[in-house]
Amino acid sequence: MAGSSSVTPILKDELDIVIATVRNLDFLEKWRPFFQHYHLIIVQDGDPSKTIKVPEGFDYELYNRDDINRILGPKASCISFKDSACRCFGFMVSKKKYVYTIDDDCFVAKDPSGKEMNAVEQHIQNLLSPSTPFLFNTLYDPYRDGTDFVRGYPFSLREGVPTAVSHGLWLNIPDYDAPTQLVKPLERNNRFVDAVMTVPKGTLFPMCGMNLGFNRELIGPAMYLGLMGDGQPIGRYDDMWAGWCTKVICDHLGYGVKTGLPYVWHTKASSPFANLKKEYKGIYWQEELIPFFQAVTLPKECTTVKKCYLELSKQVRAKLGKVDEYFNKLADAMITWIQAWDELNPSKGEAGHLN
Amino acid sequence: MAGSSSVTPILKDELDIVIATVRNLDFLEKWRPFFQHYHLIIVQDGDPSKTIKVPEGFDYELYNRDDINRILGPKASCISFKDSACRCFGFMVSKKKYVYTIDDDCFVAKDPSGKEMNAVEQHIQNLLSPSTPFLFNTLYDPYRDGTDFVRGYPFSLREGVPTAVSHGLWLNIPDYDAPTQLVKPLERNNRFVDAVMTVPKGTLFPMCGMNLGFNRELIGPAMYLGLMGDGQPIGRYDDMWAGWCTKVICDHLGYGVKTGLPYVWHTKASSPFANLKKEYKGIYWQEELIPFFQAVTLPKECTTVKKCYLELSKQVRAKLGKVDEYFNKLADAMITWIQAWDELNPSKGEAGHLN
Repeated sequence: MAGSSSVTPILKDELDIVIATVRNLDFLEKWRPFFQHYHLIIVQDGDPSKTIKVPEGFDYELYNRDDINRILGPKASCISFKDSACRCFGFMVSKKKYVYTIDDDCFVAKDPSGKEMNAVEQHIQNLLSPSTPFLFNTLYDPYRDGTDFVRGYPFSLREGVPTAVSHGLWLNIPDYDAPTQLVKPLERNNRFVDAVMTVPKGTLFPMCGMNLGFNRELIGPAMYLGLMGDGQPIGRYDDMWAGWCTKVICDHLGYGVKTGLPYVWHTKASSPFANLKKEYKGIYWQEELIPFFQAVTLPKECTTVKKCYLELSKQVRAKLGKVDEYFNKLADAMITWIQAWDELNPSKGEAGHLN
Repeated sequence: MAGSSSVTPILKDELDIVIATVRNLDFLEKWRPFFQHYHLIIVQDGDPSKTIKVPEGFDYELYNRDDINRILGPKASCISFKDSACRCFGFMVSKKKYVYTIDDDCFVAKDPSGKEMNAVEQHIQNLLSPSTPFLFNTLYDPYRDGTDFVRGYPFSLREGVPTAVSHGLWLNIPDYDAPTQLVKPLERNNRFVDAVMTVPKGTLFPMCGMNLGFNRELIGPAMYLGLMGDGQPIGRYDDMWAGWCTKVICDHLGYGVKTGLPYVWHTKASSPFANLKKEYKGIYWQEELIPFFQAVTLPKECTTVKKCYLELSKQVRAKLGKVDEYFNKLADAMITWIQAWDELNPSKGEAGHLN
């Protein structure tokens, strides 16, 4: 679009990279040229007595379970253990405007010309340019170089809305559920789709946390990854839960969600047998969760992300509590999460950036 | 998706290609390998005494304005003159299940490997595989080879719905409105996006008629291109009008609309000055038309496309008549169009395919 720029600021002091892991972070070596400008927040999952090695030269802070328990006290109950959901602790302790989070089995992808893709840079481009949730633009993101709004796109909608989420994709191992993994063990995603687009208002999407950027000031408190893993009846739905909550709140507050580029190269398919055990309740429950989230309406009084999120927790309890007792626990945890967020992010933010 | 096939039937006896033109159809030479299996319906616009040459070896029928007037009698008033909107006469006289329509300044596009793209074949693939309007699949069309539904996509939605429309795109000259053409005269679309996707339910899109396939049995009567060109206050909104009407009817009846591949190579940017004259009322009116179509609801009794379309004509008169007297004329023409459709397509179809 006229006025867009191809020079992307790197936002060195405004973006944290959040990683949850149980092992040494050798994968960072591959990302060095793209990540080493940034501060890393590492959330160590599992045994806190284990030492996680981080390659030299990276600027990082690391939190293990003992740290989380110490910092949050009883409110640590809202942070999952033995599940990648624990990474949302990193979202909470970050003090930056933007967060990028990536799985530790994801490497640098190449575009069709063979050039390594700078995932962070593309997420920044996505987050700094507006979204267009009210009408679909058939040439995709109209703010990319060489593209614009097509004929028939109302001019009143061309300023777009602020982008809150940038959902990146994965080449090689696709993000399939356990049944699909079992049926198609050899399927690989080799199709490079050179597009970024806005997920339209009113439409849900499965948000994967493998390669995800977001504007923490706009939407941070909605990026809660739920109760998963150890002691919970479900796993692998952490990012889905956050995606559903985030999307309905973005739709309500007038923020945009983009999906598409950048790709990362996903190397390791997790075991479909282990996944099936974690997922099976989710596969069943999502048939009720999707209609629930499709029908959610938030009242006008919900003018901030936190207000929206607390209202959502009420609706979860009222409507999903019947599906399973788990959702009452989850509704409690959603409230605890907001309380913990407030403790770690005292109120200057409240007035300053309206969430 | 499991079970999808990479062998596309060519549907020789089930698809017509509809072309509106004012000149000799030399462009067909370039399409010969891909088009010559199919019957062509040529709608000659402008001076009916002119002879339009069609390259040898093509099977075609040609209608000029005299033919349209003779066949439709007074109902010919619903068919535009001196505007590409006249092509919908071809949709009406076709007896096939599928229609593909293409502008006569569009040539064969190449994919990034340099291979010529068979646009008809890709439209057939799009139309024969289901659509997924209820939730966005982040790996795009889940029915393409090498792709599937991602984790978090409810299994109950994986059968999809019948696809009614396949909206193809354009490399080289993008489909911009006159103001954008004037501001960016040199912009070319060089980005090949290797994707097909469903436009979600509840989301409108600007439907361009340059490279468009549809299932005539499912949605044909909604593909009316309105009153444009000679004697009308507006042009270049024919396909937009059809797209808005078609999308709300597809959403109501549970049909899908896909957009993306195939590309055609669009060669000739029409004059932005001439376009501005045709478009300026549309640019103004669309600010009211989009909210109108976003708010349209069709009652349950509207169980066929024709019933939906006649109901829509009522709402156009009631709500848009105030915007301009033109919309009362258009509402009349919508009714005339359905009457003419019925005359040329007697009722066997009504029971047989539910529209």
